[in-house]
Amino acid sequence: MIAVLKQGTTEEQITNLTHWFEEQGVSVHKTVGVYQTILGLVGDTSKIDINLLEALEMIEAVKRISDPFKMANRKFHPEDSVISVGDVKIGGGNFAIMAGPCSVESEEQIIEIAKQVKAAGANLLRGGAFKPRTSPYDFQGMRAEGLELLLEAKQETGLPIVTEIMNANHIPLFENVDVIQVGARNMQNFELLKELGKIDKPILLKRGLANTIKEWLMSAEYIMAGGNENIILCERGIRTFETYTRNTLDLSAVPMLHELTHLPVVVDPSHATGVARMVEPMAYSAVAAGADGLMIEVHNNPAKALCDGAQSITPAQFAGITGKVFEIHALMHK
Amino acid sequence: MIAVLKQGTTEEQITNLTHWFEEQGVSVHKTVGVYQTILGLVGDTSKIDINLLEALEMIEAVKRISDPFKMANRKFHPEDSVISVGDVKIGGGNFAIMAGPCSVESEEQIIEIAKQVKAAGANLLRGGAFKPRTSPYDFQGMRAEGLELLLEAKQETGLPIVTEIMNANHIPLFENVDVIQVGARNMQNFELLKELGKIDKPILLKRGLANTIKEWLMSAEYIMAGGNENIILCERGIRTFETYTRNTLDLSAVPMLHELTHLPVVVDPSHATGVARMVEPMAYSAVAAGADGLMIEVHNNPAKALCDGAQSITPAQFAGITGKVFEIHALMHK
Amino acid sequence: MIAVLKQGTTEEQITNLTHWFEEQGVSVHKTVGVYQTILGLVGDTSKIDINLLEALEMIEAVKRISDPFKMANRKFHPEDSVISVGDVKIGGGNFAIMAGPCSVESEEQIIEIAKQVKAAGANLLRGGAFKPRTSPYDFQGMRAEGLELLLEAKQETGLPIVTEIMNANHIPLFENVDVIQVGARNMQNFELLKELGKIDKPILLKRGLANTIKEWLMSAEYIMAGGNENIILCERGIRTFETYTRNTLDLSAVPMLHELTHLPVVVDPSHATGVARMVEPMAYSAVAAGADGLMIEVHNNPAKALCDGAQSITPAQFAGITGKVFEIHALMHK
Amino acid sequence: MIAVLKQGTTEEQITNLTHWFEEQGVSVHKTVGVYQTILGLVGDTSKIDINLLEALEMIEAVKRISDPFKMANRKFHPEDSVISVGDVKIGGGNFAIMAGPCSVESEEQIIEIAKQVKAAGANLLRGGAFKPRTSPYDFQGMRAEGLELLLEAKQETGLPIVTEIMNANHIPLFENVDVIQVGARNMQNFELLKELGKIDKPILLKRGLANTIKEWLMSAEYIMAGGNENIILCERGIRTFETYTRNTLDLSAVPMLHELTHLPVVVDPSHATGVARMVEPMAYSAVAAGADGLMIEVHNNPAKALCDGAQSITPAQFAGITGKVFEIHALMHK
Repeated sequence: MIAVLKQGTTEEQITNLTHWFEEQGVSVHKTVGVYQTILGLVGDTSKIDINLLEALEMIEAVKRISDPFKMANRKFHPEDSVISVGDVKIGGGNFAIMAGPCSVESEEQIIEIAKQVKAAGANLLRGGAFKPRTSPYDFQGMRAEGLELLLEAKQETGLPIVTEIMNANHIPLFENVDVIQVGARNMQNFELLKELGKIDKPILLKRGLANTIKEWLMSAEYIMAGGNENIILCERGIRTFETYTRNTLDLSAVPMLHELTHLPVVVDPSHATGVARMVEPMAYSAVAAGADGLMIEVHNNPAKALCDGAQSITPAQFAGITGKVFEIHALMHK
Repeated sequence: MIAVLKQGTTEEQITNLTHWFEEQGVSVHKTVGVYQTILGLVGDTSKIDINLLEALEMIEAVKRISDPFKMANRKFHPEDSVISVGDVKIGGGNFAIMAGPCSVESEEQIIEIAKQVKAAGANLLRGGAFKPRTSPYDFQGMRAEGLELLLEAKQETGLPIVTEIMNANHIPLFENVDVIQVGARNMQNFELLKELGKIDKPILLKRGLANTIKEWLMSAEYIMAGGNENIILCERGIRTFETYTRNTLDLSAVPMLHELTHLPVVVDPSHATGVARMVEPMAYSAVAAGADGLMIEVHNNPAKALCDGAQSITPAQFAGITGKVFEIHALMHK
Repeated sequence: MIAVLKQGTTEEQITNLTHWFEEQGVSVHKTVGVYQTILGLVGDTSKIDINLLEALEMIEAVKRISDPFKMANRKFHPEDSVISVGDVKIGGGNFAIMAGPCSVESEEQIIEIAKQVKAAGANLLRGGAFKPRTSPYDFQGMRAEGLELLLEAKQETGLPIVTEIMNANHIPLFENVDVIQVGARNMQNFELLKELGKIDKPILLKRGLANTIKEWLMSAEYIMAGGNENIILCERGIRTFETYTRNTLDLSAVPMLHELTHLPVVVDPSHATGVARMVEPMAYSAVAAGADGLMIEVHNNPAKALCDGAQSITPAQFAGITGKVFEIHALMHK
Repeated sequence: MIAVLKQGTTEEQITNLTHWFEEQGVSVHKTVGVYQTILGLVGDTSKIDINLLEALEMIEAVKRISDPFKMANRKFHPEDSVISVGDVKIGGGNFAIMAGPCSVESEEQIIEIAKQVKAAGANLLRGGAFKPRTSPYDFQGMRAEGLELLLEAKQETGLPIVTEIMNANHIPLFENVDVIQVGARNMQNFELLKELGKIDKPILLKRGLANTIKEWLMSAEYIMAGGNENIILCERGIRTFETYTRNTLDLSAVPMLHELTHLPVVVDPSHATGVARMVEPMAYSAVAAGADGLMIEVHNNPAKALCDGAQSITPAQFAGITGKVFEIHALMHK
């Protein structure tokens, strides 16, 4: 960390500031220029509050050189983390596809889709029971009843399930869920993240719709700091000015995350684009970028999907994609 | 609402779709073009799910003409809402300043600041007890203890208090709080919004850092649909590519909101810019844009603020701003 | 195109407006609702100025249903355009790699790189002679002398060349250049686009750093409306809030463009990410998204690149990428 | 400027790099940490190419501490620049309003508006002769003929004129124009900026629609480096995700620019919002933020404006705004 001091800072002020840094356990190296004095801070600066420093009268600028995330940081954990979900593994060369409908609608629907996506090669079943909707007048999901139906589909097919949580009070309801998803709108719901840090179930942490990679890793750090290191990151598009797609899928985040963190990264091309026709090319593109898995929305009757229908593909279309997905994955790892 | 049909849609499909719309209570007017058929939907379309429609095979595009928010909509409630907080009124020409520190740190600090901002003209005391921080290693607020200190400051000065909630489970703790703030990161925490709809306390709803005005009004609608119509909107800057300021204060949102909704709008120039030197000009600018109030961060020792220090001004600086704020407000309303 | 009229619009106003539309060659279908009257406009609306309409007192909203671009539109030209550059073809299943340094620096440099990228599989040589730099104090390129060196490298290796133009007055200097590049900053330099419409050389049109797909296609339309239909679109990243990468590569633009237009689309992973380590994964990812080609920055001594060095890879690294690029391309087209 | 070296950089590499910096005229101060070595560079680093440095194998990160713009920098020119246009002065407490139509359409139109805006208090007449339009099929302005009509209006009213240039070849046509405007789309048309640096006429430099304040000042620096220091900056909204307004007016740019540069800053609320009803509140807001002037679109028949009609107000509406504008300006400077 670098602190640039304003012109006119006195020697006494510099001495006091230096002592304060040393009390925080970092050592200080001073560079005196004509216009500026620069303090180079060496040691564990992850716990120094950059805003606090910037507020000091004598400070012109503070620049953090090293990353503020520690447990998620690849520097301190060079090997890929592999997340196990039943027999399925994600990360470290292990690839998994999560597929299923946006919302669970009925027993028949979810079991039928579960069988079809399993037959087409999916490794996990996804489906929404608790649904975050922009409008209070839109369908809010089957909630607890939807979780029951997902568990039935799991029993029927053997596929582990992944589904979204919106409220820490619901954690007990998720006891038999295999992977708990934190949606984009809750990526910085820190109270929820803290509670998820206390359990040991894998968490699929979606990127917030306008959050930086650094903020995303800090949210992972919240869960990890609580003790739960089973985290899968999920890129699902960011908000930009472009309107042809619902969001802009940021695929360069995949190799960037692989450099910054040891956690696996999956990609959701369905929510990212909001256009069913874009799911296939973006699924291939994500795998070629190095993704450790995909999350794909599949619906047996897209015309009747109760939410987010525009981004759903049919089981038949899904079955037409998985083959090439596995071929690309194989090509990337040969 | 307008639905544009794809070329090749059959008469039978159109008839079926028309019946479906009519069952939802909207009437349908058909325009047949050479390349496209357009259905104009007339009536209350606020409850029609636009994504569901877009998913239909025969649909090329759907455009909503009217706004999806109803209770917050000025069309159905032409007069300004006036929110009462004790003796203080906000909206409909009534102007209020909320001032105080980012975080409550001690009894001495909060009482001292409360007295100073009151003397300088503030109408409410703001202060954070529960603090949403990007890093799990940063100070998380004094939490319940901080609420106690705020209530002491209220008792001492008579100023009503406004403070942030992060968890619906904490609502009982906020029983004596005057205005409950929903922070930017929780603007789409729908589970929290629903719970706040069940109480009757004024809610200060901050805009999410990358949320549209429409999404913001839909979040207000969540609270109002639950029965609580006491909402104050707070513009606090949006995320853009610009880096000189922490966020970009969107002041055109103020007159735009006044056109779209009857709810009052206040502006927070401190968090929006993240730079203490910008608070004064942006406070004036907000009032001239028609804001119904201001939320300003004031700290008695900026160099020691435990969080967000960079954006704090001192009580003396605050006292130097309020006079001109009131003058501009008077000029705008004469 | 749909025009929604305000409540209270008189019959006479509607009749006048209808006549005006009919004079523009579009027919009008009227839908009368309780709150709104909607006019559906059918025919060639591409020349109707949407802003002009919006300015009319009686208009509440105007929505364009069809695309304002015509010559670039796949609807009116369903087959892929194939752009020929000497023996090289781009589009319609033909794939090409353009490689070379950001800036031409010397005869030795450019000829050496040209030989190396050719040996590794590149089909065109890229290199900057006229360089748009944010700072007037940064190296501005070798300009006309740089063009000479590129032509020497072409003679030596047989590779056609692609290089950027910044000023319509320079067109005569580009007489022997094979593909003229319009950079991101000039995507809406309409005076330049018009002049390039008058020649018949292939134009590589980069996307502006904050331009929508629609604006990009309208800029292609400028060139095509002038008579030059030889256009290659180049996605090179858009500006977002993310800072780990220089820009955010928008790969979903590739399949979206393939749907909207018949023009070929290439991707530049070097400028998009600004990080040499990201070039390889994003090159693969672009090909899997369906790109018709790649533009890759290659430098024989990255440590000495005079500009944009951070995003350059070495010829050896480039040679390690092309094989897998061709394999993915083959896999996508089998 | 700070250069952070990678772990494992040898002493010899550091020595070589240090010599290279010293040859560029900057002195180097070294801080050795456990994980990193940091070089602090002191002196005039404005001409060091940050991308070049980042490309070096041994460099982990480079951070510029001081601003790369010099002639525009307030640090080296503490007093406000005052730009004189005939008898009108802008900056340093002098305030000016530029008003007129988006496009010049006829002699009658422009002279009539010129008289009306002058009567209402405008100091300069604006009007477009050369118009940058997204679509090649939209009205492109009256071009040279439009300039003639503006000059007639100037003769008739005495108002100096400001109008946009799109092509350096047109500079001779602008001989009698008082202020030459560079539009948002040409803010980084460096070839044009260089040519405008060779004349001595005031340049109104609009901010690019997605350009940072730093890039904007670097574009001003291009003109100033050529010898022309008569620059007025014009904020006109930036591109964000919000769609209720055409762009997002960034008013915090006004006080930020006043801190960073000595150049005057005017604000264009018409183009920024794209909504005529927002012009009045945003004009007031801009003045309260400290703007040195306003640019407002005024049309005598908004329903017939040939372009950008949606953002035009009438002369009568304009006359209703100027009074309060001057009152707020007086209040800000008392």
